[in-house]
Amino acid sequence: MGDQQQESRIEEEIANVVEQAKELQEKAASLISKSSKEEQLIKQRAVSIDSSIDKLRSSVISDGRIDHKLAEKLEDELNRAKCILVDGDASSFLPGKSEGRFLRMFLGPINVRATRKDVQLKVKEEYNSYRDRTALLFLLFPSLLLILRVWIWNGCMPVFPVQLYEAWLLFLYTGLALRENILRVNGSDIRPWWIYHHYCAMVMAIVSLTWEIRGQPDCSKKQKGVKLFLIWAAMQGFAMLLQNRYQRQRLYTRIALGKAKRMDVVWGETAGVHGQLWLLLPILFILQGFEAYVGLLLLRTAFVGVASEWQVVFCGFLLLMMAVGNFANTVQTLLVKSRFKAKMKKSKSKQQFD
Amino acid sequence: MGDQQQESRIEEEIANVVEQAKELQEKAASLISKSSKEEQLIKQRAVSIDSSIDKLRSSVISDGRIDHKLAEKLEDELNRAKCILVDGDASSFLPGKSEGRFLRMFLGPINVRATRKDVQLKVKEEYNSYRDRTALLFLLFPSLLLILRVWIWNGCMPVFPVQLYEAWLLFLYTGLALRENILRVNGSDIRPWWIYHHYCAMVMAIVSLTWEIRGQPDCSKKQKGVKLFLIWAAMQGFAMLLQNRYQRQRLYTRIALGKAKRMDVVWGETAGVHGQLWLLLPILFILQGFEAYVGLLLLRTAFVGVASEWQVVFCGFLLLMMAVGNFANTVQTLLVKSRFKAKMKKSKSKQQFD
Repeated sequence: MGDQQQESRIEEEIANVVEQAKELQEKAASLISKSSKEEQLIKQRAVSIDSSIDKLRSSVISDGRIDHKLAEKLEDELNRAKCILVDGDASSFLPGKSEGRFLRMFLGPINVRATRKDVQLKVKEEYNSYRDRTALLFLLFPSLLLILRVWIWNGCMPVFPVQLYEAWLLFLYTGLALRENILRVNGSDIRPWWIYHHYCAMVMAIVSLTWEIRGQPDCSKKQKGVKLFLIWAAMQGFAMLLQNRYQRQRLYTRIALGKAKRMDVVWGETAGVHGQLWLLLPILFILQGFEAYVGLLLLRTAFVGVASEWQVVFCGFLLLMMAVGNFANTVQTLLVKSRFKAKMKKSKSKQQFD
Repeated sequence: MGDQQQESRIEEEIANVVEQAKELQEKAASLISKSSKEEQLIKQRAVSIDSSIDKLRSSVISDGRIDHKLAEKLEDELNRAKCILVDGDASSFLPGKSEGRFLRMFLGPINVRATRKDVQLKVKEEYNSYRDRTALLFLLFPSLLLILRVWIWNGCMPVFPVQLYEAWLLFLYTGLALRENILRVNGSDIRPWWIYHHYCAMVMAIVSLTWEIRGQPDCSKKQKGVKLFLIWAAMQGFAMLLQNRYQRQRLYTRIALGKAKRMDVVWGETAGVHGQLWLLLPILFILQGFEAYVGLLLLRTAFVGVASEWQVVFCGFLLLMMAVGNFANTVQTLLVKSRFKAKMKKSKSKQQFD
């Protein structure tokens, strides 16, 4: 009898648990459908408000009859509305940028957009700290190779550590490109060039892996390109560290002034906090010049015939292209900034005049 | 006067839009906090039901006093409850597996878990079709290289196409490893070994890129390892195509029988649909044997001294390891399956006896 009691007790419990599971399934289904309906409503509303902000802004700008001072005030108001929409909880209901081919290629059609603002900001913060760590390694790894080259290897580097470095570069650039694409989907306004730049760097890392650097006829001649590349990489690490510091400061200032969204990334941009800019700008331009120089040198060694592998020509072209692109983008940002400054100055002097 | 009217109209509209943005922000915030509270409740409930299912199952199994037939019926009931919980809308409220280091390394701390079941299934479907496309290329790419080797290149392959193939392998395996990790987060029960297997394959692809295959002293001798590797890869492509077909069929059968969740991945598993298994199993074992053979051959060429680069030794060891791991996992799956079959048989004959 005790066995049967036990049996019927367990039977009952199990029937109970099946019932509970069914109930929960229904509750979950209704919650999902209810909240997706409400989400849909808020999404529509967000899109319509966003488009009316843009419409009003263009009518304020185009309408010459509006007093300049008033127009500026109105633009400020519109900026405020935009900030509320884009930086607050409503932002997750605005349609995001599409995932893009790069992410789809690696990850398939998954959603990488965070629905909560605080999660988006965590992603952004982590990206910044990843860049910090990366920049440090970017400085240390090639520096170490260069030091060991002189100190231990007598000017002729062994193949393995260099290839290890190149594999690390490939991993690093892949991670950066993936993360930047994810940031873009999450509403960051990162300049497309800096992402393309990382695609180029990925290709270069993989090509350099296939590049024979063993010093066959004359080691120091053959490794000249590698040496220059390492020097350039170490300089890049130093510049990255400076840039990170500068951009974080600038981003915080701009957020405080209400001019930037917190998701903005300003890698390689060069505008703002004064003191550091005059340290950063020359370094950036020197780097870009050096990048082009290394590119040209590689092309020359290829055409003179010291090392005529296709990898040398290819890396040379790629470095030149990246240098030109970086330069163009830095100058473009500076121009936008100076135009903005001129406008600010004009409106300030006008205020004093009034 | 017309201007002032226009001005005040625009001012009003702008004030209006700012107000609307604020309202929307509040609505969005309240929706988010409300639905996150409800989600929390459902999450707790889901976890508690899940754990009581597990508890009841273990008490049914351990309690010897329960009649065998009844115990089986009860287990079926518990399976049903589990299926409702895990395969329905409630599943998105159960705690998922953590992202894992691999995903965090490449993507940072983002959430790749789909909240809707239909999105999860879309990810799964896309993974399957990605594997189909991949398998086809896996078969065609090395086959093409092998054909051209005999037909045009006179037995001595040029470096570039082989390295292109290796770079493609690296990209492919990285994509597969990322996708499988994402599937795991989304509730798939993919065997960890198949993911590790892809990590190994990634490492091998990157190492093989650094491997000089230019035929210096004797091309056909030096490229013997590459040739074997390509043959193995083509065979692998063929086996993958068979496996994909077989596993998709089997998954659909198991889903129809209520034995599998729709997120399950059964790559490399070898149990089920009869006719095809006797074609698939020998091919799998031959492949694994061939993988081990290529590994041993590489090790021999390295120790005999034809090609004494570290890459040869490393790839040899890696291939051996992968072969052993694949074999162990296939056998393990077969054992699990045969145990399951024996149990089924016993219960069937018992039913007939009763």
